[in-house]
Amino acid sequence: MAPAFETVSAPQQEGETETVTSYSTGNDGQGVGFKSKVTVVGSGNWGSVAAKLIASNTLKLNSFHDEVRMWVFEETLQTGEKLTDVINKTNENVKYLPGIRLGKNVVADPDLDNAVKDANMLVFVTPHQFMEGICKRLVGKVRGDVEAISLIKGMEVKMEGPCMISNLISEQLGINCSVLMGANIANEIAVEKFSEATVGYRHNREIAEQWVKLFGTPYFMVTPVQDVEGVELCGTLKNIVAIAAGFVDGLDMGNNTKAAIMRIGLREMKAFSKLLFSSVRDSTFFESCGVADVITTCLGGRNRKVAEAFARNGGKRSFDELEAEMLQGQKLQGVSTAREVYEVLSHRGWLELFPLFSTVHEICIGHLPPSAIVEYSEKKPKLSLLEDSTRYI
Amino acid sequence: MAPAFETVSAPQQEGETETVTSYSTGNDGQGVGFKSKVTVVGSGNWGSVAAKLIASNTLKLNSFHDEVRMWVFEETLQTGEKLTDVINKTNENVKYLPGIRLGKNVVADPDLDNAVKDANMLVFVTPHQFMEGICKRLVGKVRGDVEAISLIKGMEVKMEGPCMISNLISEQLGINCSVLMGANIANEIAVEKFSEATVGYRHNREIAEQWVKLFGTPYFMVTPVQDVEGVELCGTLKNIVAIAAGFVDGLDMGNNTKAAIMRIGLREMKAFSKLLFSSVRDSTFFESCGVADVITTCLGGRNRKVAEAFARNGGKRSFDELEAEMLQGQKLQGVSTAREVYEVLSHRGWLELFPLFSTVHEICIGHLPPSAIVEYSEKKPKLSLLEDSTRYI
Repeated sequence: MAPAFETVSAPQQEGETETVTSYSTGNDGQGVGFKSKVTVVGSGNWGSVAAKLIASNTLKLNSFHDEVRMWVFEETLQTGEKLTDVINKTNENVKYLPGIRLGKNVVADPDLDNAVKDANMLVFVTPHQFMEGICKRLVGKVRGDVEAISLIKGMEVKMEGPCMISNLISEQLGINCSVLMGANIANEIAVEKFSEATVGYRHNREIAEQWVKLFGTPYFMVTPVQDVEGVELCGTLKNIVAIAAGFVDGLDMGNNTKAAIMRIGLREMKAFSKLLFSSVRDSTFFESCGVADVITTCLGGRNRKVAEAFARNGGKRSFDELEAEMLQGQKLQGVSTAREVYEVLSHRGWLELFPLFSTVHEICIGHLPPSAIVEYSEKKPKLSLLEDSTRYI
Repeated sequence: MAPAFETVSAPQQEGETETVTSYSTGNDGQGVGFKSKVTVVGSGNWGSVAAKLIASNTLKLNSFHDEVRMWVFEETLQTGEKLTDVINKTNENVKYLPGIRLGKNVVADPDLDNAVKDANMLVFVTPHQFMEGICKRLVGKVRGDVEAISLIKGMEVKMEGPCMISNLISEQLGINCSVLMGANIANEIAVEKFSEATVGYRHNREIAEQWVKLFGTPYFMVTPVQDVEGVELCGTLKNIVAIAAGFVDGLDMGNNTKAAIMRIGLREMKAFSKLLFSSVRDSTFFESCGVADVITTCLGGRNRKVAEAFARNGGKRSFDELEAEMLQGQKLQGVSTAREVYEVLSHRGWLELFPLFSTVHEICIGHLPPSAIVEYSEKKPKLSLLEDSTRYI
């Protein structure tokens, strides 16, 4: 122990000693005066907010073209008008983000090929299940020097490994792909409430800083971390924790128990990610994508809400039934992610290391009652192993 | 990046590679068959719950004497009876934990010297302002081989360093002192709702495990970490974060902003602790004493509650006034801790590194409006330094 106040230089620990190495970026290669062109692929609720954030910055910053192109999956509105026409006329996504001006420099484009062809910065923000098809359509259609970023949360966790969206984009299109995740409720950011996000990048710190410039505003603070996998996995795994938190709410167990469950969930997210990718950093879980997104998702959010209802009904009404009743067609992610992760844990012999993840799944399928969410120590005699999961395995 | 599922051995990172070294403990020195005798110094709400937890374990475990002595600051109840007499007769602390049986093996003792004289494990759980006086009274009155643990949250953060209660006990009594902190709402643990806690120990892992055995139950899971200072500082600094969270609630800014503020608060707790003590570990802030206690305190708790009222009144009614009105004589910790920490930051030239801590204080004293809690990026141009606070200082 150092005596109080003697140490002015804090110890350098993992994840905080990142060295900013100087790589040349695609943009640098273009020489002085080159302006980046940004296209947003996707125009749902979060995609529209992303376009708004970006458009406010491209207007201000010299290194970007003002215009932000947004690919819109064309729909005909009840009025008979095309969605893209209405967006371009009113500057508002009347269907997915009504009441919010996107910025006059946002141009909605229904033609995917045309929308991406000139861009050297591509922002992917569609529902995750559409990405495979979109990538297939884009092969050979994007610039060679293009940089991509994925804002897409939720992935399948298959037995052979999680289907990282950033990987899918990288591999299919032969381009580098970063990710942006965090505690980001689109409608709260749309009205400019203070929030944060995390950019996960692979090698090139300058690219990461380019994304930070593009997204960051005084009310939306973005931090870059060199850990694509850790950041991206957070956006999926947190939904299992939200299911657990919902059970605690449904059992009226109070804030103390809920905080404990959220903490254990965050720890399992960290341990699981580190087992999958040795490059994952502890410090990533202190970022917005980690602890803050867990908090937001466990306080609000549909996973928590339906899980609360599930526990209040003593597990007697299925998730499918509650989902249909409560979510008007929206789907829960947490239940399927819990099942997928359970299969991996079971196959790898890791079940005892992840009592929260495995218990969530066992409750979801009715093998355990909702109250089992707080009964690890009795049901799982080897829980103590988890403390050491990253030490001894 | 490692390919998915190839790496079964996760990387060993800071704080997870703790080696359990074998020290001889005071108890071992007593030979086989020696039974530890436990005394709880304090009998308020949390002290009574601690006695209940401990008493349930001493009955079950052979290495402890059944009897748990609890020093009670004697009071005469409205009925004219002495508090100790009523506790010993009814087995209930009718004043500070009504309705809960403590265990028949808890013996209330109004005589401090007598309560501690045979104990080789002392549990300190009084209001922090009483500890100096208690320590002075105990000099020369405790056994030479006694081990202590402090459950006392809240300390003064003086210019020359924080007044760690564990240090006060160690130095005044010449004994080793561990700490136990965490997301621990006494009344929820009293009714056996699931919770966790963290034991911070200095050198001796066996002593830490002894405390884990003494406190741990299926509904109260205790994890040892070798970081007394980090664990103890969490219990004090989190109150500043709770004030910030209360402001966000009072401004109706939503869960997303609140999660961001809680995360920034946790990060400043970590950075500040590491600047004060080079031994402090990042991983400590993932424990119950860190992230979970921040969550509990920012969801409930009196600091949050009064800060919410302060913000709802636009800062026009002082904390003193609101405290008097809302807390029936209980005192807020967060406001004074924020002031003390501000003085340290200011004196050290660290203010810009801790925008949340410093803004909380400036709001409390009326120099900034409550809305400033989310305006760092405009008011604090050097915020980005904070990201690197533990890197570059």
